[in-house]
Amino acid sequence: MTTPLGEFRVNQTSDPWALLQKCNTRLSTGSIQQAFDRDPDRGRRHTHRLGQLRLDLSRNVPDESAWSALLALAAERGLPAGIRRLLGGDTVNLSEQRPALHSALRCREVATATGVVGEVEAMQARMFELADGFAAGTWRGATGNPITDLVNIGIGGSDLGPKLAVEALAGAGPRRVHFLANVDGSAIAALLPRLNPATTAFCLTSKSFSTRESLTNATSARAWLEQGLGRGPEAPGAHFIAVTARPERARRFGIAAERILPMWDWVGGRYSLWSAVGLPIAAAIGAAGFKSLLAGAAEVDVHFRDEPLARNLPVLLALVGIWHRNVAGLLAHAVVPYDERLKSLPEYLQQLDMESNGKSVTAEGEPLQRASGPLIWGGIGTNVQHAFFQWLHQGTDVVPVDFIAVRDPGHDYPEHHRQLLANMLAQATALMRGRDATATAAVLRAEGLDPAEIDRRTLQCVFPGNRPSNVLMLEALTPRALGNLLALYEHKVFVQSWIWGNNAFDQWGVELGKTIAADIEPRLERAAGGGDPSLDHWIDWVSRRES
Amino acid sequence: MTTPLGEFRVNQTSDPWALLQKCNTRLSTGSIQQAFDRDPDRGRRHTHRLGQLRLDLSRNVPDESAWSALLALAAERGLPAGIRRLLGGDTVNLSEQRPALHSALRCREVATATGVVGEVEAMQARMFELADGFAAGTWRGATGNPITDLVNIGIGGSDLGPKLAVEALAGAGPRRVHFLANVDGSAIAALLPRLNPATTAFCLTSKSFSTRESLTNATSARAWLEQGLGRGPEAPGAHFIAVTARPERARRFGIAAERILPMWDWVGGRYSLWSAVGLPIAAAIGAAGFKSLLAGAAEVDVHFRDEPLARNLPVLLALVGIWHRNVAGLLAHAVVPYDERLKSLPEYLQQLDMESNGKSVTAEGEPLQRASGPLIWGGIGTNVQHAFFQWLHQGTDVVPVDFIAVRDPGHDYPEHHRQLLANMLAQATALMRGRDATATAAVLRAEGLDPAEIDRRTLQCVFPGNRPSNVLMLEALTPRALGNLLALYEHKVFVQSWIWGNNAFDQWGVELGKTIAADIEPRLERAAGGGDPSLDHWIDWVSRRES
Repeated sequence: MTTPLGEFRVNQTSDPWALLQKCNTRLSTGSIQQAFDRDPDRGRRHTHRLGQLRLDLSRNVPDESAWSALLALAAERGLPAGIRRLLGGDTVNLSEQRPALHSALRCREVATATGVVGEVEAMQARMFELADGFAAGTWRGATGNPITDLVNIGIGGSDLGPKLAVEALAGAGPRRVHFLANVDGSAIAALLPRLNPATTAFCLTSKSFSTRESLTNATSARAWLEQGLGRGPEAPGAHFIAVTARPERARRFGIAAERILPMWDWVGGRYSLWSAVGLPIAAAIGAAGFKSLLAGAAEVDVHFRDEPLARNLPVLLALVGIWHRNVAGLLAHAVVPYDERLKSLPEYLQQLDMESNGKSVTAEGEPLQRASGPLIWGGIGTNVQHAFFQWLHQGTDVVPVDFIAVRDPGHDYPEHHRQLLANMLAQATALMRGRDATATAAVLRAEGLDPAEIDRRTLQCVFPGNRPSNVLMLEALTPRALGNLLALYEHKVFVQSWIWGNNAFDQWGVELGKTIAADIEPRLERAAGGGDPSLDHWIDWVSRRES
Repeated sequence: MTTPLGEFRVNQTSDPWALLQKCNTRLSTGSIQQAFDRDPDRGRRHTHRLGQLRLDLSRNVPDESAWSALLALAAERGLPAGIRRLLGGDTVNLSEQRPALHSALRCREVATATGVVGEVEAMQARMFELADGFAAGTWRGATGNPITDLVNIGIGGSDLGPKLAVEALAGAGPRRVHFLANVDGSAIAALLPRLNPATTAFCLTSKSFSTRESLTNATSARAWLEQGLGRGPEAPGAHFIAVTARPERARRFGIAAERILPMWDWVGGRYSLWSAVGLPIAAAIGAAGFKSLLAGAAEVDVHFRDEPLARNLPVLLALVGIWHRNVAGLLAHAVVPYDERLKSLPEYLQQLDMESNGKSVTAEGEPLQRASGPLIWGGIGTNVQHAFFQWLHQGTDVVPVDFIAVRDPGHDYPEHHRQLLANMLAQATALMRGRDATATAAVLRAEGLDPAEIDRRTLQCVFPGNRPSNVLMLEALTPRALGNLLALYEHKVFVQSWIWGNNAFDQWGVELGKTIAADIEPRLERAAGGGDPSLDHWIDWVSRRES
């Protein structure tokens, strides 16, 4: 399939934002459905392939000349140089003065170009050895029993990526991987009673080895092991792996050096599933599976580096998002996988996108000129058709949707799968096509309703339509396809940050809450207010000084 | 605690929307934090109690006179009459010509007033008998074994409410309740291999007994039972309960009359957990627990019916949402429970709110004059602090947050719980307080950074602040408190619908997608396009007619 977008001439002399607004004004007199009616090739032409993915951008407002304007914007913002800087290992994270080398973890050419091949390969060899030990049952705990349950302790990027990949790719087997993220005691209290200390190990992932939630959970887990194993305070050490940039702290926690895997400054948490943070993935699907996941991502890295903007999928996906956010002025973007195994994908993309691009200043500290990262949210289909789809179809606001599904199911319920895919395609169609009052009244008449009922219902049953969506399918839910999918979104997020001008790789917005929590926590313990009228009554009540 | 809001005089002569805009203009020159600085009693005064709930509305922009204007709006919209109509059993669902009597399922006074006491009590007696049979191990399957695993088959309201309540309230025990909603074969394929047909039963909930997803899952479950039980085609019937308004269809499916529980037209799916749809809840927590859940909701019903608007919690919660949506112009509203057991609450409220108020026309079919139901989304704290909170704090858009927590934890990890609550209060504080450039630079200096680094970081680390939130705590996660919480939100949604003028109880927006899916599904089976250029290339690819 060829895409004629590759042939567009980019006009760099005019202001691309002004041009986009002009396109929007022109296009707002028509509809996406009318564009299909005029141009039956629109669907195929705007459907792109990359690895095991197929991405259909045709149910969006931009026509060929609006796409040209979007590409001109990317060119004007110097995106090709941005891509080279990212993949060449330049300091793209200015506030922390670091490169962002997640692509080097999976793409040999990027690793070579950025000079990290040696450390990456050494890390991977050790990671696969530990993962294989778990999978093969040769990792034995303090009592000599093989470890059968591995609990990942990590939060944010140390949780979401590994959890998503394990849920997506791991089948049922004799060994299990669990995830413990929340500091809420309900989480650990629900998990530990299901496990046997003799056969349970923990993988504690924290770049700084000071993430409060993870250290608190690990400390409680260590106490549970010590008590359950009954072999003294050193015994739990044999049941821990650490993934951290601060190995000395992990040693002090009681973890042996041979079970401490490195993290590096140049990998951000939300980009870290490709690193040793992915150990639970390798433990669940094996080293070969993990290598396929990396290969799938690398396939996208090479594409991102080499393809011209007009045929570059992360770029196109980003640009249609720029259209929605900055040209159409839409706040939010929904992610709806029609696959139970991808149920954590909305949460994963939420972190990836919103923590990267939820910023209001440029990398240099100037206020952004435009709205940046959208609100990313979603849920799994078909469930959400019975929840928020009413709102998507008939609400007063428009939110574009990424529909995501898998062509070849991993099960023997073909009728279920056919219904699933039919529903997904139908929802994208319904959002775009809509149904006006005349068509609605005709449908109600055909259903045999009486005139009074038709009158009462017609306007309630009108659909405005012209609501945009992307349709993305994987051939099958393989490690390679998942690698394709996640790297596609990673680079999409980078492209958008580059166009907006913010730094996608820092997250200073998480700090203030931590500082204030550190102030409140001892006050809750001592039941002591601090003269803050917004808090003291809560501190009194939580400490039961006030009924 | 008294609330002086009860004493406000409502001025019904001026246009309340214009008055609200004036308030907003006036208040936009100050900040919420400044209001606290001026008025140390603000926190306590705007914190309200109801049953086992404590709700703090103080971290919002409205001052006393803006609250007066909001209450005037409610009065002008005739809200007291609306509440009477709802709880009196009037036809509030105009398009379907029905009352909405979910309150009658839990509040004896409402049931009496609306004349349904008899049918409700008869249903409950049968429901508790079935639930007790499961809990006591006296329900035996076709092979004589006691049923140990109950699988709820339902989607939307037949899934989300029961799932939330079971996750929130059920402890670990010898019997388990599972939830199967999605038609995706991955869901049933992951569940059935973990279960034994001899000891597994299904509760199939579908008002119409024609919900495609649920019937497809139930048909596959019945086949699995038939094969696994090996006692012929009648045997699976002993392993099924149905909850439906179409008992004759359930009989034809093979379910005995004594295991068919009624549903009624006058209970909407998203308001149905109080009905026989709650059977899995009663099965998991017992009849006494379920009665407490009902009693908690009834407590709110009576409050909602009897309290003046200015002291009526569902009304106040709704009005602050009206401020956010229509006065401040904010699209979305986040729900962030700081409790693992409430992890499904955001999804539950998403359906409740967005399916009720995701409408663009009045109950009479006129276009709404204002934006209606917001986008409801969220996740659990503290996890989401490491995901989308960057965006909430520093993104270019403002989204208010409902923070929800539980004072008395149900576990023995007090340090975990203290951290959890400290974090929640800290996030609400940080969103409100913010941190300007001067304060930020001072913090960075105090951390000992060098001047170049301070320069580089200061503007990245500024927090705009003045971002609103509600803080809501339950004394403990009891059935009563959960009943309080869910009924509070139900009535909040009703109040907003009344003010906007839309019908909260229909959901015509889900129909068009179903119609189109019914057209696409056979085309996927036959690999036959229909001349639709937006779909045919997908049908070819999914059917593997195109590589």
